[in-house]
Amino acid sequence: MSQLSHQIQLLRRPSGLPTPADFALREVPLPELQEAEVLVANQWLSVDPYMRGRMSEAKSYVPPFPLNGPLDGGAIGTVLASRHPDFAAGDRVSSMQGWRDSFVANAAQLTRLPKTDLPAQLFLGALGMPGMTAWAGLHKIANLQAGETLLVSAASGAVGTMAVQLAKRAGARVIGSTGSADKVAYLETLGADAVINYRATPDLDAELARLAPEGIHVYFENVGGAMLEAALNHMALHGRIVLCGLIDQYNSEGGASGPRNLSQIIRKRILMQGLLVSDHWQHYGDFLAEAIPAFEAGALRAEETVSEGLASMPQAFIGLFEGRNTGKMLVRL
Amino acid sequence: MSQLSHQIQLLRRPSGLPTPADFALREVPLPELQEAEVLVANQWLSVDPYMRGRMSEAKSYVPPFPLNGPLDGGAIGTVLASRHPDFAAGDRVSSMQGWRDSFVANAAQLTRLPKTDLPAQLFLGALGMPGMTAWAGLHKIANLQAGETLLVSAASGAVGTMAVQLAKRAGARVIGSTGSADKVAYLETLGADAVINYRATPDLDAELARLAPEGIHVYFENVGGAMLEAALNHMALHGRIVLCGLIDQYNSEGGASGPRNLSQIIRKRILMQGLLVSDHWQHYGDFLAEAIPAFEAGALRAEETVSEGLASMPQAFIGLFEGRNTGKMLVRL
Repeated sequence: MSQLSHQIQLLRRPSGLPTPADFALREVPLPELQEAEVLVANQWLSVDPYMRGRMSEAKSYVPPFPLNGPLDGGAIGTVLASRHPDFAAGDRVSSMQGWRDSFVANAAQLTRLPKTDLPAQLFLGALGMPGMTAWAGLHKIANLQAGETLLVSAASGAVGTMAVQLAKRAGARVIGSTGSADKVAYLETLGADAVINYRATPDLDAELARLAPEGIHVYFENVGGAMLEAALNHMALHGRIVLCGLIDQYNSEGGASGPRNLSQIIRKRILMQGLLVSDHWQHYGDFLAEAIPAFEAGALRAEETVSEGLASMPQAFIGLFEGRNTGKMLVRL
Repeated sequence: MSQLSHQIQLLRRPSGLPTPADFALREVPLPELQEAEVLVANQWLSVDPYMRGRMSEAKSYVPPFPLNGPLDGGAIGTVLASRHPDFAAGDRVSSMQGWRDSFVANAAQLTRLPKTDLPAQLFLGALGMPGMTAWAGLHKIANLQAGETLLVSAASGAVGTMAVQLAKRAGARVIGSTGSADKVAYLETLGADAVINYRATPDLDAELARLAPEGIHVYFENVGGAMLEAALNHMALHGRIVLCGLIDQYNSEGGASGPRNLSQIIRKRILMQGLLVSDHWQHYGDFLAEAIPAFEAGALRAEETVSEGLASMPQAFIGLFEGRNTGKMLVRL
């Protein structure tokens, strides 16, 4: 008798902003556990903007999701049964087998969570992929220095909140950009020196001139569009732009417009570099060595936006593009 | 009795492509020679795209040219009289006192030409600022490696022809882009492995896919526009873009459009960096140590497009934006 897994499948490739009708919740039988395999029940599913790219046919850095097959993504679960000596029932593990409530996988696809009393779901957010992305962008690409001015777009998101806090710890002056008064207030509690509510700022150029009169040394870019163009105008000489995300463009079908002022890159000799966290996992231990004690001491904080139940996953995902999350977007099972 | 200097002055700030009426040829008296000063008669004037930026009011990396004052730029001349012990009548010198036939300057503003039998005007082109720009882009920004594929836009220009040849010497496979059949043929004689005539290529994307099936490792960008967008689509993983010029945009008044596919920078983790040669002069000796012997041996070659007489300078300058030069654009006095 095999167990059943419930999973969200992709029915069709979304055009523009995804809708719930692009997804279906389906029940599939799990295979019998083979030698070296482990049965896991998920408790937390990660909801990330990058997943949008894999829903399209277009070639990206990872292959597109298959239609009528399981989507995947980060997940935290508990081992129910194991036929591998490294894992036993009750172990907490992370995997890329998200968008489903349970699964059978080879033990090599599982990572045991580090020993800490911190909440397990942090390893999907501030202590996982988004936190590592922020750390790698600041330290491995931008080489952020104490005393420099950092601008972070989508600053209240999972990557942004960690970029703000890690940059403050590194001695930088931090300007965040976000889209609501609540998020502005939240970012101020995290230590941001200034926060722009871009929806309430008619002239981004003038605002950046006011907030960064000596220029922006590092721009941690998650959005694109008007903020990228304004930031280019106000970068400092030899500034660095970490191109981490362009969430403004993910749901546009070829209609995205690019910044008209790339000549600023020449004038200021700016370095712009694309960031994908997968290039940087060899430094994950260095990141955790800084971040776990800081979380345990209360010196780093993480916000979560939690949606309940597997069926809520498509709406939670769509909500990312509507600015409905502060910090990490998660689904709890 | 003071001598007269003839010089081109800027009458008004050009809107779009400059016209001859934006300039005037004027006669001004030269001051008497003071202690430490030198009187120089120019023989060669440099004509460069970057000068367009200084004709506008907009803030750039150098201040705008004053109206009704002398323009400046690279020049090669001969000392006529000197009140500084380091210079004597007959010495060949380079300076930034171009756009005029003679001038008086402090000796500190002059550079003696290196000892070589090569034509002096090479030090305005292949052995001067444009050649050094190509060398710094390839070696100090892109870190071009043997076996890599390089794409160069405006490949038949002063910077481009040196980028093509220096990259071949470094063991790269070189694709050039230029705008006429004659220029294609010329670039093939310089050793380019493939040359695109962009005016005769309706589908740049398809052409780059054909010519660089394994991707472009380094893009040496002088133009912008459609070629930048196409190149982004065909960059290799971890490719580098040297942003040296955006000549497509220099004469557009805020109407420039940016590449719509910056997401490729994330997907391929591309590094894009602005290049201004002034950051790299400390390596000029390294460049000359490679390039002077290579020119003397005939292993590097330079084309010149020469216009005769000071009065022809405005037209020569406008010609840069109409593709009228192959190699370095010069005015001979």
